[in-house]
Amino acid sequence: MINKLIAKIKKTNAPIVVGLDPMMKFVPEYIKEAAFAEYGETLEGAAEAVWQYNRGIVDAVCDLIPAVKPQIAMYEQFGIPGLEVFKKTVDYCKEKDLVVIGDVKRGDIGSTSEAYAVGHLGKVQVGSKSYYGLNEDFVTVNPYLGSDGVKPFLKVCKEEKKGIFVLVKTSNPSSGEFQDRLIDGKPLYEHVGEQVAAWGDECMPEEGNYSYVGAVVGATYPEQGRIMRKVMPKAFILVPGYGAQGGKGADLTDFFQEDGLGAIVNSSRGIIAAYQQEQYAGYGEKNYADASRAAVIAMKEDIASALEKRFQ
Amino acid sequence: MINKLIAKIKKTNAPIVVGLDPMMKFVPEYIKEAAFAEYGETLEGAAEAVWQYNRGIVDAVCDLIPAVKPQIAMYEQFGIPGLEVFKKTVDYCKEKDLVVIGDVKRGDIGSTSEAYAVGHLGKVQVGSKSYYGLNEDFVTVNPYLGSDGVKPFLKVCKEEKKGIFVLVKTSNPSSGEFQDRLIDGKPLYEHVGEQVAAWGDECMPEEGNYSYVGAVVGATYPEQGRIMRKVMPKAFILVPGYGAQGGKGADLTDFFQEDGLGAIVNSSRGIIAAYQQEQYAGYGEKNYADASRAAVIAMKEDIASALEKRFQ
Repeated sequence: MINKLIAKIKKTNAPIVVGLDPMMKFVPEYIKEAAFAEYGETLEGAAEAVWQYNRGIVDAVCDLIPAVKPQIAMYEQFGIPGLEVFKKTVDYCKEKDLVVIGDVKRGDIGSTSEAYAVGHLGKVQVGSKSYYGLNEDFVTVNPYLGSDGVKPFLKVCKEEKKGIFVLVKTSNPSSGEFQDRLIDGKPLYEHVGEQVAAWGDECMPEEGNYSYVGAVVGATYPEQGRIMRKVMPKAFILVPGYGAQGGKGADLTDFFQEDGLGAIVNSSRGIIAAYQQEQYAGYGEKNYADASRAAVIAMKEDIASALEKRFQ
Repeated sequence: MINKLIAKIKKTNAPIVVGLDPMMKFVPEYIKEAAFAEYGETLEGAAEAVWQYNRGIVDAVCDLIPAVKPQIAMYEQFGIPGLEVFKKTVDYCKEKDLVVIGDVKRGDIGSTSEAYAVGHLGKVQVGSKSYYGLNEDFVTVNPYLGSDGVKPFLKVCKEEKKGIFVLVKTSNPSSGEFQDRLIDGKPLYEHVGEQVAAWGDECMPEEGNYSYVGAVVGATYPEQGRIMRKVMPKAFILVPGYGAQGGKGADLTDFFQEDGLGAIVNSSRGIIAAYQQEQYAGYGEKNYADASRAAVIAMKEDIASALEKRFQ
C-alpha cells in the first residue's frame, strides 16, 4: 500500500491528503436541513448530513489527490450511526481508488493492539471464516506504550501489505510538553523516531525505498521535520497542520527527500470548509465542494512550487 | 462519578473492576454455536456471541463489584456489529448500576479530543437537540499529545461529573521503552503523573478527596505504584495487570492510600475466562459465569487480606 500511495502521489503530482474531519459547523445548512427532514435532529440525521457532505467533497477532489484521512473521532462522536458513516466513507473512498489513512491514533498492548490492528487493517476470524472490519489502508498509531503496542500492527501490515503512521511529533501547541523533553540529550520524539526507523527496517515491502511504518510530524514544527527526515530515512512522513494550523508549503520542503517524495501533507478544514473562508466565499454554500476543489488546487500549487524551488 | 465509584467500592468492599475484554477464544463453544446458528459465521454472529457471553458474566458478578471496564478494541475488531455490542454492554452494565470505565485509550488534539470526549462521556449537539453517544462513566486517555489532548476531556468531565484515567505507567513489558526514560532525573511517567495531579487540581468534585482525573499504573510495577501514589495524592489509580499478567494482591497495597481507597484493580481474562483455568475447570464451559463469580470472590479476598495486613 505504501507503493500504491507513492504511485498515486506521482500520478497526481500531489503529495497531499485531504482530512475528512466533518465537524457539524462545516456542513452546509442545506445539507443538514435535508438530512434532518428525513431523519429528524437525531444521531442518524447528523450521520446522514456528514455522509452527504463527505460524498460531495470526495466526488469533487478525488481525481486531484492520492489519499484521504478520515478522523474517526468526528464520526465516533455520533455513536453507532456516526461509525457507520465512517465505514461508508472509507468504502466510498476506496471505490474511488483513493488511499485511505484512518486517523484513529489507536495504541494498546499485546492482544488488545492486535484487535485494533485486525479491526482496522486486517481480517478478523469468525469461526471458519474471516472478515475485514473497518478496512482502512493505513492507520495512525500512538507509541506511548512501546513496542508491545506497535508490533501487532507490524504483523498485520506485513500480511496485508498495509501501513501505519506512528505519532512522533504532533502538530499541536502543547506537543512539546512530553515529546520535546530531553532524554540523554535528545528529545523524546527523536527516540520515538529512532524506534520508527527500527520498526520500519523489519517491515519493508518487497520493492521500494519506503517501509510500511511511517511517522507523523506536524507541519507546525519544520525544524523538527528536517531532523526527523534524517533520523527515519525509510519512513514516509504524514504532515498534519498545513493551512488552518499555520503550516505553509515553503516551511515543508525539509520533510521531503531529494526525490521529492517521503512526505504527504494533510489539510482538513482548509479544504473541506474552504467555502467558509473569505478567499473562497464567492462559491457560496451550495458550491462548497467546488470551493474544496479550488483549495486543493491552490494547496497543490503551493507545495509544488516550494518543492521546485528547493530541488531545482 | 468518582464519588459513586468510591461509594460502590465501600459498599461491595471490593476495589475491583472486571475487564470485559471478550476475545473469541474465551467464549464457550455452546454460545458461539448458538450465535452462529442464528446469524451465521458473520460479524453479526461474532458480536451476538460476545454479547451473550458478556451478559452471562455481568449477571453473575454484578452484585459483587463496583465497576466494569470493557476494552473497546475487542468490540471494534468486529466492525460496526462489534461496536453495537460495546454500546449494548455499556448500557446493560449501567442498568445493573455498575460504573463503566470505557478502556478506549483515546487522545488527540483540540477539537478532535473534544469530539472523543463528547462521544464517550458527554452529549453531542445535533441541531437543537443533544444526545449521549457511547455514554461511559470514565474513559482511559493517552497523554502523549500533552495538555491540548487532555483538557477537552476535563471540560466534559466537569460538565457531566464523569472522569478519566490517564495512562501513566502501563502494565506491559515494553512500557519502559519510553515511559521509564529519565528526564531531569525522573522517568517520563513521573512527569506525566505530575501533570495528572495538576489536571486533577482543576477538576475536583464539590465534595470528596479524589479528582475526576485518575491514572493508570500497571500492577506489574508495584515499586512505581508506590512512588506514583505519592506524586498524585488526589488521583484514583486504575491498576491493570492483576492475575494473568502476573500482579498479586500482596504486591498492590502500595497503590492504595491509608484509608484503603485510592486504587481499583482490574482483572480481565483472570475473571472472564476463569473456566479455562485449571483452578476453576470443574465448573465446565456451561457454568463459565459461575467460574467467573468464584474468581471474583477469590480476587476480592486476596486483595482484602493484603490490605488488611498492611493497614491493620
